[in-house]
Amino acid sequence: MTKLSAGIIIIGDEILSGRTQDTNSNFIANHLIKSGIQLTQISVIQDLEDIIIKKVIEYSNEYTYVFTTGGIGPTHDDITSQSIAKAFNREYSFHPEAFKILKNYYPEGQFNEGRQRMAKMPSGVELIHNPVTVAPGFKIENVFVLPGVPEIMKKMFLNVLENIEKGEPKKTITINTNLYESTISLLLNDIQNKFSKCSIGSYPFFNFVSKKAGVNIVISSWTMDSLDEVVNDIENMIRLKGGKSSIV
Amino acid sequence: MTKLSAGIIIIGDEILSGRTQDTNSNFIANHLIKSGIQLTQISVIQDLEDIIIKKVIEYSNEYTYVFTTGGIGPTHDDITSQSIAKAFNREYSFHPEAFKILKNYYPEGQFNEGRQRMAKMPSGVELIHNPVTVAPGFKIENVFVLPGVPEIMKKMFLNVLENIEKGEPKKTITINTNLYESTISLLLNDIQNKFSKCSIGSYPFFNFVSKKAGVNIVISSWTMDSLDEVVNDIENMIRLKGGKSSIV
Repeated sequence: MTKLSAGIIIIGDEILSGRTQDTNSNFIANHLIKSGIQLTQISVIQDLEDIIIKKVIEYSNEYTYVFTTGGIGPTHDDITSQSIAKAFNREYSFHPEAFKILKNYYPEGQFNEGRQRMAKMPSGVELIHNPVTVAPGFKIENVFVLPGVPEIMKKMFLNVLENIEKGEPKKTITINTNLYESTISLLLNDIQNKFSKCSIGSYPFFNFVSKKAGVNIVISSWTMDSLDEVVNDIENMIRLKGGKSSIV
Repeated sequence: MTKLSAGIIIIGDEILSGRTQDTNSNFIANHLIKSGIQLTQISVIQDLEDIIIKKVIEYSNEYTYVFTTGGIGPTHDDITSQSIAKAFNREYSFHPEAFKILKNYYPEGQFNEGRQRMAKMPSGVELIHNPVTVAPGFKIENVFVLPGVPEIMKKMFLNVLENIEKGEPKKTITINTNLYESTISLLLNDIQNKFSKCSIGSYPFFNFVSKKAGVNIVISSWTMDSLDEVVNDIENMIRLKGGKSSIV
């Protein structure tokens, strides 16, 4: 197991109401695994101060890195920054550099109270550059506070990822077979028991259009030098059961 | 606020690894809000017994309804049922009815040990019918245990939803405007303060293809008889600021 772990906190009533499909956590997940950081938990929570405070403290204690998305815009429902200031017992006030960045961005006389709000942060934080709409995110302790709008979040996250400690990417190979999961379950269990340093996941699929069913077998390991032996065993097992297999 | 609440637990390494984009929780979320049930939290957790036990107990104590997805298939990595048995101090053994359903489904001699595993459940649970691949889910206390494969999960969830207590759907109206969020933030805050029985969410969007930006303002309430007055105030405010608005 990699020594680097991560948790994602999605702050967003719009996800819980079903209005918006969260795609941010899948994007972050894909990048973390390639960066040798184990994503361990994702929570989607309401835009409520007490809940944000509690979850941020819990995650910050638990994981190497915490990523939050959502709630740092200029409107009344954007309460992430002030909640996180409380979570870490910091003052919630204008960040001089953020204030300057935003002031320079808006035309003379248009840097109004609403916009100024985006410069209010917990004291002493490090800014996260926003190449799209200027308003920065921030890093406090091990928590990276990012916006919810995917196009902006993604660029800012990639920027963050460049600058943090990473590990060895998790080795992963997927074998596709036309056999049913229940046909291979026992033998797959034996193979899992033989190779304790990898995890073997079994994901059945059903394509209602093509009427094709089968299983994707995902072998993954943080520590093994090679997955070849496991792949070999699984391919042999599939052949033995009369099935076809291919590496996806 | 509705008196009925819900939480979703997505049990799935495949979501945390980024291999799969979770769409189950968005589907459930959309149906819950229309059924007068407030979805309050979603957690995506690892396929690990201790973690499943802890989260299921926490959610079961906290919410009216809990929905879990994933981990009830026939393979070694499907450990949801046995973990939930432990969470509720129940025996983990063959459910007679589930055993019978599965035995009847498979051709003579093909109801092997792997397949039989899908009939093992905490003792005394109520089955949830699976119209697609037969293997049932189950209800234990206030927890509904569903599979992870979306096509199957969705049909089983709709079946569950028909049979549980529902409330008044949450009233929701979305107003789209071409104004920037920071232009309307202060006046929107005033309107929110005027109407404390609804929540007003502000969701900026950026379309990088059409280069259009703007905000979706989502007004929602569990208790108000009508949102007309709020809509009226927001439309007037947008006009005042020189913007255009439309109900989405």
